[in-house]
Amino acid sequence: MVKTVRFHEYGGPDVLRLEDVEVGEPGPGELLVRVDAIGVNRAEVLFRGGHYIQPVKEFPARLGAEAAGVVEAVGAHVTGFEVGRPVSVVPAFSMNDYGVYAERAIVPASAVLHRPGGLGAIEAAAVWMPYLTAYGALVEVGGMRAGDAVVLTAASSSVGLAAIRTARRVGAVPIATTRTGAKKKALLEAGAAEVIVTGEEDVVERVLDLTSGRGAELVFDAVAGPGVIDLAKVVAPGGTLIEYGALSGEATPYPGFELGMPALNMRTYTVHETTTDRRRLRRAEAFVSSGLGTGAFEPVVGRVFGLEEIAEAHRYMEAGDQIGKIVVTVDHHPRPM
Amino acid sequence: MVKTVRFHEYGGPDVLRLEDVEVGEPGPGELLVRVDAIGVNRAEVLFRGGHYIQPVKEFPARLGAEAAGVVEAVGAHVTGFEVGRPVSVVPAFSMNDYGVYAERAIVPASAVLHRPGGLGAIEAAAVWMPYLTAYGALVEVGGMRAGDAVVLTAASSSVGLAAIRTARRVGAVPIATTRTGAKKKALLEAGAAEVIVTGEEDVVERVLDLTSGRGAELVFDAVAGPGVIDLAKVVAPGGTLIEYGALSGEATPYPGFELGMPALNMRTYTVHETTTDRRRLRRAEAFVSSGLGTGAFEPVVGRVFGLEEIAEAHRYMEAGDQIGKIVVTVDHHPRPM
Repeated sequence: MVKTVRFHEYGGPDVLRLEDVEVGEPGPGELLVRVDAIGVNRAEVLFRGGHYIQPVKEFPARLGAEAAGVVEAVGAHVTGFEVGRPVSVVPAFSMNDYGVYAERAIVPASAVLHRPGGLGAIEAAAVWMPYLTAYGALVEVGGMRAGDAVVLTAASSSVGLAAIRTARRVGAVPIATTRTGAKKKALLEAGAAEVIVTGEEDVVERVLDLTSGRGAELVFDAVAGPGVIDLAKVVAPGGTLIEYGALSGEATPYPGFELGMPALNMRTYTVHETTTDRRRLRRAEAFVSSGLGTGAFEPVVGRVFGLEEIAEAHRYMEAGDQIGKIVVTVDHHPRPM
Repeated sequence: MVKTVRFHEYGGPDVLRLEDVEVGEPGPGELLVRVDAIGVNRAEVLFRGGHYIQPVKEFPARLGAEAAGVVEAVGAHVTGFEVGRPVSVVPAFSMNDYGVYAERAIVPASAVLHRPGGLGAIEAAAVWMPYLTAYGALVEVGGMRAGDAVVLTAASSSVGLAAIRTARRVGAVPIATTRTGAKKKALLEAGAAEVIVTGEEDVVERVLDLTSGRGAELVFDAVAGPGVIDLAKVVAPGGTLIEYGALSGEATPYPGFELGMPALNMRTYTVHETTTDRRRLRRAEAFVSSGLGTGAFEPVVGRVFGLEEIAEAHRYMEAGDQIGKIVVTVDHHPRPM
């Protein structure tokens, strides 16, 4: 039996239970992975609360799509992995099918990457989702190029920080927004070219000023809701407003007509577009691994919890005060015979 | 003095007045054109009513952005045009600056194209706006390729019919929608691969059925409003919902979150993106001219009015029963000395 986080109903962090569950053996195309560290993502908080873009299909439900660990068993028809190989699991599946909030988990091999050398489990659990998300959105979907201005909302999230580094790496100009001045210094240290404090400054005015009136080629937004109207105003002609989250919880209008039909692309995006497309994932893996190798990229670990503190980890994410990734580590018992 | 259509206040077709106005001489970069035929576009109906994306800056206001005629005088710094050259004027300027509902009009040379040989004035006034709009949206913005499915709303409009031909020409599959069965036969004759009667059939079901569940690579929509939610459902992953009109008059939601964050591009588009970009306009002109030359494209003239019937022409457009372009012809007095 394997300690596994499950929940039997939608609710707050307290619905999360650490239960003994039979893990079984990997089927065709699957791997059994010993989980050493788990990356906590907002998708899991939303899934647990019943607010995710996918509802829970069946209770009790599992959670978790990102982890670092070691291969313990290899299913049929899987190539490129062997027992003992350090790996990372990346979000490329539905949490209705698999969940990595556990001591051990079966996952599809298509969601598993070799762990780059020199990366510990905590770092390896913190690095992929943010950088795959940012790379896929900005480079694959948005076509980001050197000299582009890129506006980032919720910029102190793990994805926001990865987006700052990704923009820097290609020679683009990351402009971060943050609600209060509290995180401004950290964002500048993380590489933001400019930080706009939305509680004190006018975003439209500031972005147009910073781009000589041109606007930003890309806006990468995790907030959505009515705020997209102002964000759309700062998109340069032919630029793209990429929506990858809906932190506002409010309905999102389409701003194209209100703004006089500009050449505005508006685009929803999830990391699954990157992780479930074999060619994109290959490019994304190469981009992130090479960035880690040169030091252009680094994991930003915000705070580390133990598996038994999973509810606390969710509470911490909901409070929204973190900078960087929340990671949960797993203490291991020997694998049962 | 030159008979010119003007209006002194927003309102219905009756606010249009045929008045004697001094036309003057073309300034630098401008041409004086004798107008032989005028293409009537919805933008003018909206501008007259105060519903266009640009308000009237000053009354009395002029109208009209598309015409065929002959060059009568050439302003400074204009090359490539000489007196007597048959030309077409295409929508590449604000109606606050220029208007071609007149016997003669000054227009910017950047909005003037040579008229293809063999094209009469009525045809030359009917052909450009629809094909430039469709080409720019589908090919330049949407990247339409052979085999793509393209859903067209308001397909019996002049732009809709041009979009059908444009899709056919590149080997794409035009799927037209129409509210009632009345225009179904005409749309099939115009080249639509399939016609969906929205009053009788479920658009989502039909498009998914016609595309083996894949969805359409492009949706080219003139209606907007709440209907975009269903249209977004039929966009294939990575495809684009292009919004080029708002006939519904209703607020338009952004459907990305409601639909579970698909890889959905949503895009406003106006023909000005094509006509005011020198490189795009050059390609568009070549595409349309060559299509007219081979017979792949042809002007579809719906009904022809005289300049003194301009209010009637607007009423006819508002009734929405036309198939193809509404053209207004001009009877000429000799040019005053």
